[in-house]
Amino acid sequence: MNKNSSNMMALAPNTSNKRETVCIFGTGDFGRALGYKMLQAGYPVVYGSRSRQTSSLIPKDAEVLSHTEAAQKAAIIIIAIQRQHYNFLTPLAEVLHGKVLVDISNNLKLNQYPESNAEYLAQLVPGAKVVKAFNTVSAWALQSGTLDASRQVFVCGDDMEAKQMVMDIVRAVGLTPLDQGSLLAAQEIENYPLQLFPMWKFPILLSLGLVTFFFFYCLTRDVIYTYIYEKKNFSFFIAISIPNRICPILALTLLSLVYLPGVLAAIIQLYRGTKYRRFPDWLDKWMLCRKQLGLVALAFAFLHAVYTLIIPIRSFVRWRISSQTISQALNNKTEPLDITNAWISDSYLALGILGFFLFVLLGITSLPSVSNSVNWREFRFVQSKLGYLTLILCTAHTLVYGGKWFLSPSSYRWYLPSAYMLSLIVPCIVLVVKFVLIFPCLDKPLTRIRQGWERNPQYSEQSNYIINKSAV
Amino acid sequence: MNKNSSNMMALAPNTSNKRETVCIFGTGDFGRALGYKMLQAGYPVVYGSRSRQTSSLIPKDAEVLSHTEAAQKAAIIIIAIQRQHYNFLTPLAEVLHGKVLVDISNNLKLNQYPESNAEYLAQLVPGAKVVKAFNTVSAWALQSGTLDASRQVFVCGDDMEAKQMVMDIVRAVGLTPLDQGSLLAAQEIENYPLQLFPMWKFPILLSLGLVTFFFFYCLTRDVIYTYIYEKKNFSFFIAISIPNRICPILALTLLSLVYLPGVLAAIIQLYRGTKYRRFPDWLDKWMLCRKQLGLVALAFAFLHAVYTLIIPIRSFVRWRISSQTISQALNNKTEPLDITNAWISDSYLALGILGFFLFVLLGITSLPSVSNSVNWREFRFVQSKLGYLTLILCTAHTLVYGGKWFLSPSSYRWYLPSAYMLSLIVPCIVLVVKFVLIFPCLDKPLTRIRQGWERNPQYSEQSNYIINKSAV
Amino acid sequence: MNKNSSNMMALAPNTSNKRETVCIFGTGDFGRALGYKMLQAGYPVVYGSRSRQTSSLIPKDAEVLSHTEAAQKAAIIIIAIQRQHYNFLTPLAEVLHGKVLVDISNNLKLNQYPESNAEYLAQLVPGAKVVKAFNTVSAWALQSGTLDASRQVFVCGDDMEAKQMVMDIVRAVGLTPLDQGSLLAAQEIENYPLQLFPMWKFPILLSLGLVTFFFFYCLTRDVIYTYIYEKKNFSFFIAISIPNRICPILALTLLSLVYLPGVLAAIIQLYRGTKYRRFPDWLDKWMLCRKQLGLVALAFAFLHAVYTLIIPIRSFVRWRISSQTISQALNNKTEPLDITNAWISDSYLALGILGFFLFVLLGITSLPSVSNSVNWREFRFVQSKLGYLTLILCTAHTLVYGGKWFLSPSSYRWYLPSAYMLSLIVPCIVLVVKFVLIFPCLDKPLTRIRQGWERNPQYSEQSNYIINKSAV
Repeated sequence: MNKNSSNMMALAPNTSNKRETVCIFGTGDFGRALGYKMLQAGYPVVYGSRSRQTSSLIPKDAEVLSHTEAAQKAAIIIIAIQRQHYNFLTPLAEVLHGKVLVDISNNLKLNQYPESNAEYLAQLVPGAKVVKAFNTVSAWALQSGTLDASRQVFVCGDDMEAKQMVMDIVRAVGLTPLDQGSLLAAQEIENYPLQLFPMWKFPILLSLGLVTFFFFYCLTRDVIYTYIYEKKNFSFFIAISIPNRICPILALTLLSLVYLPGVLAAIIQLYRGTKYRRFPDWLDKWMLCRKQLGLVALAFAFLHAVYTLIIPIRSFVRWRISSQTISQALNNKTEPLDITNAWISDSYLALGILGFFLFVLLGITSLPSVSNSVNWREFRFVQSKLGYLTLILCTAHTLVYGGKWFLSPSSYRWYLPSAYMLSLIVPCIVLVVKFVLIFPCLDKPLTRIRQGWERNPQYSEQSNYIINKSAV
Repeated sequence: MNKNSSNMMALAPNTSNKRETVCIFGTGDFGRALGYKMLQAGYPVVYGSRSRQTSSLIPKDAEVLSHTEAAQKAAIIIIAIQRQHYNFLTPLAEVLHGKVLVDISNNLKLNQYPESNAEYLAQLVPGAKVVKAFNTVSAWALQSGTLDASRQVFVCGDDMEAKQMVMDIVRAVGLTPLDQGSLLAAQEIENYPLQLFPMWKFPILLSLGLVTFFFFYCLTRDVIYTYIYEKKNFSFFIAISIPNRICPILALTLLSLVYLPGVLAAIIQLYRGTKYRRFPDWLDKWMLCRKQLGLVALAFAFLHAVYTLIIPIRSFVRWRISSQTISQALNNKTEPLDITNAWISDSYLALGILGFFLFVLLGITSLPSVSNSVNWREFRFVQSKLGYLTLILCTAHTLVYGGKWFLSPSSYRWYLPSAYMLSLIVPCIVLVVKFVLIFPCLDKPLTRIRQGWERNPQYSEQSNYIINKSAV
Repeated sequence: MNKNSSNMMALAPNTSNKRETVCIFGTGDFGRALGYKMLQAGYPVVYGSRSRQTSSLIPKDAEVLSHTEAAQKAAIIIIAIQRQHYNFLTPLAEVLHGKVLVDISNNLKLNQYPESNAEYLAQLVPGAKVVKAFNTVSAWALQSGTLDASRQVFVCGDDMEAKQMVMDIVRAVGLTPLDQGSLLAAQEIENYPLQLFPMWKFPILLSLGLVTFFFFYCLTRDVIYTYIYEKKNFSFFIAISIPNRICPILALTLLSLVYLPGVLAAIIQLYRGTKYRRFPDWLDKWMLCRKQLGLVALAFAFLHAVYTLIIPIRSFVRWRISSQTISQALNNKTEPLDITNAWISDSYLALGILGFFLFVLLGITSLPSVSNSVNWREFRFVQSKLGYLTLILCTAHTLVYGGKWFLSPSSYRWYLPSAYMLSLIVPCIVLVVKFVLIFPCLDKPLTRIRQGWERNPQYSEQSNYIINKSAV
């Protein structure tokens, strides 16, 4: 770092390397927890407080002073106070001039105020350098040290040096700072801890909708129809048989929805003859939640696998097999092995097993630590090549499962086809279009477009959109 | 870093940016491996050695000198020598004055010496700045580059600048330094590589105890009782049937033990009227190993799932089903489908599948890389909301499985109830108490207490404990 | 960082902390995407371009100048141009003297040119300081921010300070720099993004070979032989029965191949009496892909588990069981329970389940984020102790599965033994040799050798090899 430090150090050990004093305004839970951590890391800590009544809770090694006195002692002041009390800082403007103010506050709701707390603070104390940090960490996690959730601390601010000083503190207390740019990013950083799986919202809502639809569809076909026309009470199908129809349908449909936007994007690019025009908004959003869609599909595939494997243990299935056997025995006949049947049964099971295996593999490679250790080419190979192979295997699994029933009239009850037939629509479309796109007459221009070639270069004026968007 | 570097660089390329010489005392495996790595990273390396006999093993680019000569050439000296030989450093005290000594030693046993090796070194050479580092890395890992285990290097020391210099070396050889504070942390750092899953000790010992108890319990009820009263030899139950009773019992009990301490803590906080008093020690320890308890429970749930799915393949089960079918066929009767039975069978299977699915989800989110990529609110949602849902589903699974047998006298052999009944005790307690705690008359004061409110503020004098403890 | 920054900052906020201008040569996709990212991070960006025609695509805040003008404005110049056009830099040699040139180029094939692009650049502009970086990141990933694949940026270069400046930029745009040493490493860094799972090549090719061999082996024994001698058409065995024979064989064989090189290495070390001589090349390579071998083995074990659990659902199996039951019923006899059979069946299933469970555990601990959070001793405990336990359980599973058939002549068709017998060869060898190596008369000298003791110290002259190799 500095070339002659080793020579200097011999002269005055343990004097020149003291860390700078940090001031904390506010003696609440978080202020105290952070103070302890910083004391541990070697920072002298001074608290600024209105009263000195609450001092028993404050770490012993820390000083408690008035706000003004405390602020004068330090270059960095951490504002561990709620936003509605920020206006007490206005009279201190002079002493805070040039200081680094660290805004650690969170709101209770998304976009609660028009501007972020950190920007509000910057307006209140215009002479100070405001840095947003620490809002993603809880006081409890700091105290107990069990940082099971993220160690990442998002930091933003307009002043590079101030930001650097805060990031040094973050590192010193054992957390990982992530520079998010200027103070404009504060709104997003303040919203972050209030989010509850935002990227998962669309896949989960979509799944819930499809589950509901297919539940009533299967209920009608398998329970109500049977009850009315065959006088059989199969109400217990609700527990396992119907879920085990819904799960594979959703797994296959959602998996194909992962690959549909890529196919659509290719068609749009071919039609426009350029890659420099922005996709429609819905397509952009869809593409960004493909990973989540795929993982929800995997969850349904997993449930389908377990539901299927449990079949022979079901009391109903045991009864059915046993009564078939008994009736054969009583009729004094043994059926010969039906080779075609054996082939169909074994094939769709084998296709399903291989598809599920590849699906699990895709899931494992999407774990953050695994995807972080492969290069770009490997990641694309797995997610694209293996992904399509999975889709092909799962579609084939469903097609072979259907077998001879497709054209049999008995599989249409109340003119409703079997549910699995509906699940084949989207994957078949995706696979057919993808197959067409592989033909050289389409693949070649597409590749050229993706390498930057434009059919009508006049479009390029609009092309800033796609890049600007990502720059936000 | 430095503003005018780019101007300087034009003048004298490749001269001003040489890294500082590092000295290594000791030419053993680790000293040599580290020397190679530092040479690769651009550090000139000089070895301090008593004899020059062993020089053939030392990297060619490194110089080998006497201890004194070597020490004079460098600001940083890495002591790659075992603790028992440290006293040879005493005569070198003068030349080591002001130098950074890096203690990389490990012990053979936990707490082998009263003070850590690094503190002992600091006592022997009082004028030097001792930094503890590198002890978690093996020579073999350094040489082969296959750092499958941790890349983390814990660093501690009293001198900030010395620590910074060592952390720069750690980074330069491709490892990740983690600042652990002052030299007081050395004891802990030296104990770290000797640990063998310390957080897992309690969950695993507890499981072993419970497994042993339930094994003999089930052996008595299912094998010995049957042998004595029904003259049937079911000894082979030891292989699958009994394990498949023990596994679900342990999974459910351990899962409920994950949530019991939270419930106990809530009761204690409500009773005391404050959150600022330390919990009893056993509760603190219990809370810290909840993750491990949950993962052991998941392991048992996984085993239970596989043991259950394997049932229809078992030779005994095939024989039993076949002989039931044959006896029905010989008696010339076919049993009708028992709808209640079908409902019970399908329901407990469905509940078990859903519970297992959520359990696996909890397990996946506790992977370090996954839990690192969610925010605090999401982590709590998964571990608390989904966790309780899992507990409810698994308890319901067991209750429905029991079905009508609860009151049947035939299920009490030698006055021993079925083993699964015992497994319901803890989860039912947890769920009932949790349900009571949700009532507003208890939930409201609890929430206020957790936000910092105190019923009897005089207690707050003692409240330093809870925070002090975490500061250790 | 700098001690007196806090004092300075009060005087002149927002002036001293401007980041240095960065120049980008080339306005292609990557140049533009990187420019946007750097502008976001606070760097002034200036583009060097031959024409100013393409300016509409370039970020608004960036200046576009001629190459010479642009280069004069910045200390760092990013060369976002393909290697074949590098020679345009020769006339600019003077203005580039002393500048940091960042080579971000990739090739289309492994080792396309005799020297790396970065070294070629360094030859073309001898006065500049060339740093290799950013080649592992795609323009699309930079733009969209969805860095699902690696955030790691490998950096190498001969000039420490230049490298440090580039690593600061890497960090500022949200990526993780990894110092790979001198410019000699550029070749490897340029090859990295072209690799497709290089460590997996050997395990996967080996598996494919074994799968093919065992497929035809089983086809001959189970389908062709049966067809010829018993006139039965079991062709549908190809879908499930034969894969379910191949998978366990491969799982067991590959798992034992994970432990075989360790055993061979021990024998070689014992024979040579030293650890300081290099192993044969094939053994070194084998040892480095043990993790991949183990994971491929786990994949086969997973497939085996699912194939086995699916058995009772197969139409053929249902037919076989049902016809056996019917024939018993028609013959008016009930077979008694065969306790030995029940024991064998339950034992091999139980051994298989436990072996599979430990295997999955080994797989989980080899996830990067998990293996990163255990210490060296824990990692070795899991991978060595638990690994051998897994191997023992799986071998025992296969042995018990074989049961009484080993000596039965009916299991030799055309003098070919059952396929599972072949799978026992390697694991039995490994376990027997490992067992022999545990005896104190062999274990003691081996331990001493591994601690550095040498039987014939004259060998040590050659011992540099092993370490030199790792230093490459």
